[in-house]
Amino acid sequence: MSTRFARRMSGVRASSIREMLKATEQPGIISFAGGLPAPELFPVDDIRSATERVFRETAASALQYGPTEGCSLLRELLAERMLKRAVVCSTDDLLVTTGSQQSLDLIGKIFLDAGDCVLTESPTYLAAIQAFQAYEPRFITVPTDEEGLIPEALPELIEREQPKLLYTIPNFQNPTGVTLTAERRRILYSIAARYGLIVVEDDPYGMLRYSGTAIPSIKSLDTDGIVIYLSTVSKTIAPGLRVGWAVAKPEIRRALTIVKQAVDLHTSSLDQRIVYRYLSDFDIDVHIERIRRSYGERYSVMNSRLEECMPAGFTWTHPEGGMFLWVTCPEELNTCELMPGALERKVLFVPGQDFFPDGASRRFMRLNFSNASLAQIGEGIGRLADVCAAAVRNLPVAQRC
Amino acid sequence: MSTRFARRMSGVRASSIREMLKATEQPGIISFAGGLPAPELFPVDDIRSATERVFRETAASALQYGPTEGCSLLRELLAERMLKRAVVCSTDDLLVTTGSQQSLDLIGKIFLDAGDCVLTESPTYLAAIQAFQAYEPRFITVPTDEEGLIPEALPELIEREQPKLLYTIPNFQNPTGVTLTAERRRILYSIAARYGLIVVEDDPYGMLRYSGTAIPSIKSLDTDGIVIYLSTVSKTIAPGLRVGWAVAKPEIRRALTIVKQAVDLHTSSLDQRIVYRYLSDFDIDVHIERIRRSYGERYSVMNSRLEECMPAGFTWTHPEGGMFLWVTCPEELNTCELMPGALERKVLFVPGQDFFPDGASRRFMRLNFSNASLAQIGEGIGRLADVCAAAVRNLPVAQRC
Repeated sequence: MSTRFARRMSGVRASSIREMLKATEQPGIISFAGGLPAPELFPVDDIRSATERVFRETAASALQYGPTEGCSLLRELLAERMLKRAVVCSTDDLLVTTGSQQSLDLIGKIFLDAGDCVLTESPTYLAAIQAFQAYEPRFITVPTDEEGLIPEALPELIEREQPKLLYTIPNFQNPTGVTLTAERRRILYSIAARYGLIVVEDDPYGMLRYSGTAIPSIKSLDTDGIVIYLSTVSKTIAPGLRVGWAVAKPEIRRALTIVKQAVDLHTSSLDQRIVYRYLSDFDIDVHIERIRRSYGERYSVMNSRLEECMPAGFTWTHPEGGMFLWVTCPEELNTCELMPGALERKVLFVPGQDFFPDGASRRFMRLNFSNASLAQIGEGIGRLADVCAAAVRNLPVAQRC
Repeated sequence: MSTRFARRMSGVRASSIREMLKATEQPGIISFAGGLPAPELFPVDDIRSATERVFRETAASALQYGPTEGCSLLRELLAERMLKRAVVCSTDDLLVTTGSQQSLDLIGKIFLDAGDCVLTESPTYLAAIQAFQAYEPRFITVPTDEEGLIPEALPELIEREQPKLLYTIPNFQNPTGVTLTAERRRILYSIAARYGLIVVEDDPYGMLRYSGTAIPSIKSLDTDGIVIYLSTVSKTIAPGLRVGWAVAKPEIRRALTIVKQAVDLHTSSLDQRIVYRYLSDFDIDVHIERIRRSYGERYSVMNSRLEECMPAGFTWTHPEGGMFLWVTCPEELNTCELMPGALERKVLFVPGQDFFPDGASRRFMRLNFSNASLAQIGEGIGRLADVCAAAVRNLPVAQRC
């Protein structure tokens, strides 16, 4: 093994998420772990029709090798749809990727040398940390509050750490559900532009807003070509298709393409054609509206049940979209230690510690509300609250809230 | 950009293959460039039936996130089919990858530090060089002849260079079409085992044998767990599906899985299910027999036409399978300089220089015989021979053969 890989593995904590996902196979388990969309909302009939048409009309090209940049028909359509995110871009700015996860690896490959600094929110998306880690950067975290990262903290960090990248999930962040305000996006952008800092704007959840007003993407402000915008069909059509995309100025898009060619030649031609056909033949916005209504209802029920059942001293975020909310427990409580009790009551959550790039904060849990039914949410939050209440009773009296 | 990426880009020669593939769009062009399978041989109806059944029976899981290791049904089936390559392995030894190209990147990630040595044939598969290059190894080439690499040269190279990996394509190599003999496989394996050297056995073409006798894979000898075997459905079912696999001892398979999770989470669930269904419901060996007959005939016609038309001083390999043959031109001839003439005559080939990891040898060309019809091969080789004859006439008299 390479010393790089050995170093990386020595720093890997066994992912609690992966261990727990194994437990989700047990009958009767209610899971708020994982980050799966609701399969009953997949537009199966429409995807099937799209697939049939692909086989009828373009089978040979859907089964053949294709260009690394992606199928040009799909790139055009995705570039057009970027207008929904207030971004004007051309086909040449857009690269189709094997899920948006792949962009994180490609970006690491072209921007990061060992020891380079990456700025992130803390907590942040676990698999982004893992993707960048292969290139051995230092992670430096930007202070955040309930409106997302605090851009005023950036100049000092940038001057001190000379970061190569700022990685941010501005909409309904994973794991917190927090959204960066419009004003902060403007301030963030102007600071990044002043320093020429590359901003990686990861936006898997942007279309899934349940309340409040849509906020234009950071990319929409990008007159300097410093923002790399990432998204995916995983949360709007289906994740099994592994189709994502990156939007970046042509120089960066071309570098990403060169690197992508060496890692998987290109994304599945069949999946790309199916997504193209689906987007052309059906009204995805009607479908997204259906997801929005359903997930919004699931979030509401989860929030109400948390209010009803959780003991004092527990607070949580109130996301306006996405798939997750984030629970803050009393200070002395270690959510990893809640796991055995939760498993016994057949309810799953993700302890927050893996989401911190700079060390473990142990009092948090992430709850996913997109993959459980309303009845499961009602029942599951009750069970989780019991587990939390029992844990609080076991705390020394002075530490109870 | 990272200094790593900048260094890598400074070493990149504009790929003649990519430039030429753009020219293949022109009407009337006959292309022996590229490495595309024949689309008219894709088992379209059977893949379509398999896909319909996937949507009918397992739509939700085919569209949902899945395990990084791959769909377990598919892994089982692929592990069983390894018996065709004389390899006994279990599901736990097998990782599904996004094409076998992905394995090369994953292997680079876990084995290579900057400056590490990789042993390869010379010439070798261009995109393997590119995949490993991201990790900045030194390439050291092993002497080869018409029976593949010469294993007797290995001990000295291994002792001097302390390589991390030996990368080899033992069956119908890309670009030469040469096959490593059974005896050399045994010698190669015993030397690698003695030194504990990891052998990457890349076998995309192994099932496509047109003459001669099948030779067991190097992996079939692997009692020490040092061989990583790679293959793909790209040449037997369809490359657009991007489904490949790696077989390695569980320790390596798990390391590959950890790394894969960070680069694309998992390979397309839909593509995996379609391949599983296709392999379960149809007899792929009957289909492969059809490909074998057709490609074997194309090779024969190409070989006969080369014998009829090529001027003196040109020789070529006589592969028993695969998709390519390799032409050696008179010593003073630079095949890049044949390109304008070839384009004018509307025939395409790949100059050999990009396939040499250790510098450009300019007198070679790779010809693909799987993607052109018999009539195109007949006509195209005639045109190519004219171009070659004209080039020879332009050489100084002393250099003509």
